[in-house]
Amino acid sequence: MDGEKKSAGILAMDIYFPSTCVQQEELEVYYGVSRGKYTIGLGQDCMAFCTELEDVVSMSLTVVKSLLEKYQIDPRQIGRLEVGTETIIDKSKSIKTWLMQIFEVYAEGPARPTGGAAAIAMLIGPNAPISFESKFRGTHMSHAYDFYKPNLASEYPVVDGKLSQICYLMALDSCYKHFCNKNENFEGKQFSIFDADYFVFHSPYNKLVQKSFARLYFNDFLRNSSCIEEAAREKLEPFLNLSGDESYQSRELEKASQQVAKHLYDAKVQPSTLIPKQVGNMYTASLYASFASLLHNKHSTLGGQRVVMFSYGSGLSSTMFSFKIQDGQHPFSLSNIVNVMNISQKLELRHVFPTEKFAETMKLMERRYGAKDFVTSKDTSLLYPGTFYLTQVDSLYRRYYAKKGADDTTVIHANRSFVNGH
Amino acid sequence: MDGEKKSAGILAMDIYFPSTCVQQEELEVYYGVSRGKYTIGLGQDCMAFCTELEDVVSMSLTVVKSLLEKYQIDPRQIGRLEVGTETIIDKSKSIKTWLMQIFEVYAEGPARPTGGAAAIAMLIGPNAPISFESKFRGTHMSHAYDFYKPNLASEYPVVDGKLSQICYLMALDSCYKHFCNKNENFEGKQFSIFDADYFVFHSPYNKLVQKSFARLYFNDFLRNSSCIEEAAREKLEPFLNLSGDESYQSRELEKASQQVAKHLYDAKVQPSTLIPKQVGNMYTASLYASFASLLHNKHSTLGGQRVVMFSYGSGLSSTMFSFKIQDGQHPFSLSNIVNVMNISQKLELRHVFPTEKFAETMKLMERRYGAKDFVTSKDTSLLYPGTFYLTQVDSLYRRYYAKKGADDTTVIHANRSFVNGH
Repeated sequence: MDGEKKSAGILAMDIYFPSTCVQQEELEVYYGVSRGKYTIGLGQDCMAFCTELEDVVSMSLTVVKSLLEKYQIDPRQIGRLEVGTETIIDKSKSIKTWLMQIFEVYAEGPARPTGGAAAIAMLIGPNAPISFESKFRGTHMSHAYDFYKPNLASEYPVVDGKLSQICYLMALDSCYKHFCNKNENFEGKQFSIFDADYFVFHSPYNKLVQKSFARLYFNDFLRNSSCIEEAAREKLEPFLNLSGDESYQSRELEKASQQVAKHLYDAKVQPSTLIPKQVGNMYTASLYASFASLLHNKHSTLGGQRVVMFSYGSGLSSTMFSFKIQDGQHPFSLSNIVNVMNISQKLELRHVFPTEKFAETMKLMERRYGAKDFVTSKDTSLLYPGTFYLTQVDSLYRRYYAKKGADDTTVIHANRSFVNGH
Repeated sequence: MDGEKKSAGILAMDIYFPSTCVQQEELEVYYGVSRGKYTIGLGQDCMAFCTELEDVVSMSLTVVKSLLEKYQIDPRQIGRLEVGTETIIDKSKSIKTWLMQIFEVYAEGPARPTGGAAAIAMLIGPNAPISFESKFRGTHMSHAYDFYKPNLASEYPVVDGKLSQICYLMALDSCYKHFCNKNENFEGKQFSIFDADYFVFHSPYNKLVQKSFARLYFNDFLRNSSCIEEAAREKLEPFLNLSGDESYQSRELEKASQQVAKHLYDAKVQPSTLIPKQVGNMYTASLYASFASLLHNKHSTLGGQRVVMFSYGSGLSSTMFSFKIQDGQHPFSLSNIVNVMNISQKLELRHVFPTEKFAETMKLMERRYGAKDFVTSKDTSLLYPGTFYLTQVDSLYRRYYAKKGADDTTVIHANRSFVNGH
């Protein structure tokens, strides 16, 4: 993919999330918490999870294979492969190396229990319908212990929930400040949230996205943006002199800013919240699953519009950047991307587990975590066709995968080697 | 660092390895193996290791801080930070986030027991004395279980030694083939090992580097290179019809090819083997530690020369590429880079541990692996000045570091946050 590099960005994408999920309101009952704690407090509707048949490798195999097939991309056209994940299976062996099996087709053709699970594949190239406005990037990184996984033998993280939220909002403030400065330097006028059509956030739970957009609104107020209406200005006035720390902790500010920003949230943010609310926390895939939701909901009207993206990883590393949308030619048109992702049908075809069965599955997964010498269930009836799944972990911890499907049941062997030359 | 991008490459580098090491010939006695097994069989002289005071984070802090100081680089000039490591401390939190503490200084100014330990920092930019010849890159990736770390609770890998070596040599063959093809397409004449002045290899142990260079020689022979002398041709003739698999297993071929390539190995490879033989397997840092050795030994005569690099990671992913050397201006001259790295003195100042004391240290490290709630020894006398070291891991697994040095003893706190805007 040499040649001209104008309008580099996303040419094509596909998304995968497990076909197995559990309802958040049933989890509230099962765990005996107050009604609304997960559905309103976190703003989440449903949560996807992996059974013993799936993991980060199988989901990556599934979505990459699907992307290549559905857009009829010749693997030899791919110049560079990047894999981003937070969930590791091997401390040394790269997930890229498992994916090499897909790039072998020249000739022949559960992640974590609490949270959610999904994988996104994207093709990046020139003349893209979804192009990076790279001059407007704002970045913030710092050293924090907000969410981390130091116990290597456990699949669960150490989380400081309150710190985690403050870190996220501080990073957001900082990125937005840099992003605004860059915009103002280039455009010669003040930037505000009115200068973008949509805002898409990394979404550990929906409530944080609501708070985040309100926080951007509060930032515009503090920056004396002329776009903030008088009525809103009056409601936010009492919080003008809060210190930074105080402002992150103030429930009153949170409430007031969400209230005045609500109509803008509905227009500029809500269309991107579908998958995160239905699937849960997807970690590395979260931001792009939100973006996929926006495409799904608004693709016919996105031409010429600007989408601001906020990427966040605990620890912490964050960036705010923007896309300019200009519809492309088939197969890289927005409508084709939406057809390929087929989000409605994927959501409809899911199997909602009763909570007891979900809890049982999670117990099995805990025992299986880091284990060796076992085979998984032969029953793959719950998987979508075309899904890769784990069949066995042998006595040397080597993992074996197969692909569900009538025509192309493929067993992936360990140590199968091939050439991928560029 | 915007502007012209001609001759992008390495502007500056520094290397760090622990000041603590053990002699390989003493290890032969201690472990009761045959004399020469490690020193000749593996080709290794000495092995560096981390005591309880050091880990992958402290080594990264040490070498990045040193690079910035010694070349007087303003952290705000750095547009992008990349960290490559195989050894993780947290499954989620990026080592980059710990390094943010170094980029905060605007105002003020055995890792694994078997193997080795080191860290390299490099500044990449335009108009570099060590520039990438990017059009000649040859890449090979595949899925293999040659060396991996699936047991998340253990610091030790699973290694299939024989498979690991075959994977390495197959990857080398494949990369060399692609690299030669690229060269031949651009230059219009056959490429051979005589067309490069030096070859630098990823070096898990020196013996594999000897075998690898001999393998390139054998490749040139198979490709009918006119540069192979008649006498050598006769010695290799008996192996002409071996299958690929047979050729990887043949001890006779290994011996014959090493013998005929020996004089070229001494000239083109040996100068890059100093640090790997003295420090051991440095994993991600291995290739650049070898390159640092070449700079150290040959910097005054490298101008105008071409260096071929072979990068390898188990699992597996490998690339062959080349550098063109054109000496730069201070502080980015080869002689200054060599002065900064100061390899001779670093090697001389090391503390050679008797094997019993080494074994004791390793036992402590095994108990400490993945542990929490402990403080480390207050005795930092063995560390070089300026070295970062681990002081404590608290009950929430948070790691605390300090820096040795009279003027600038700095305690690194958890959760210290700051802005790094670009």
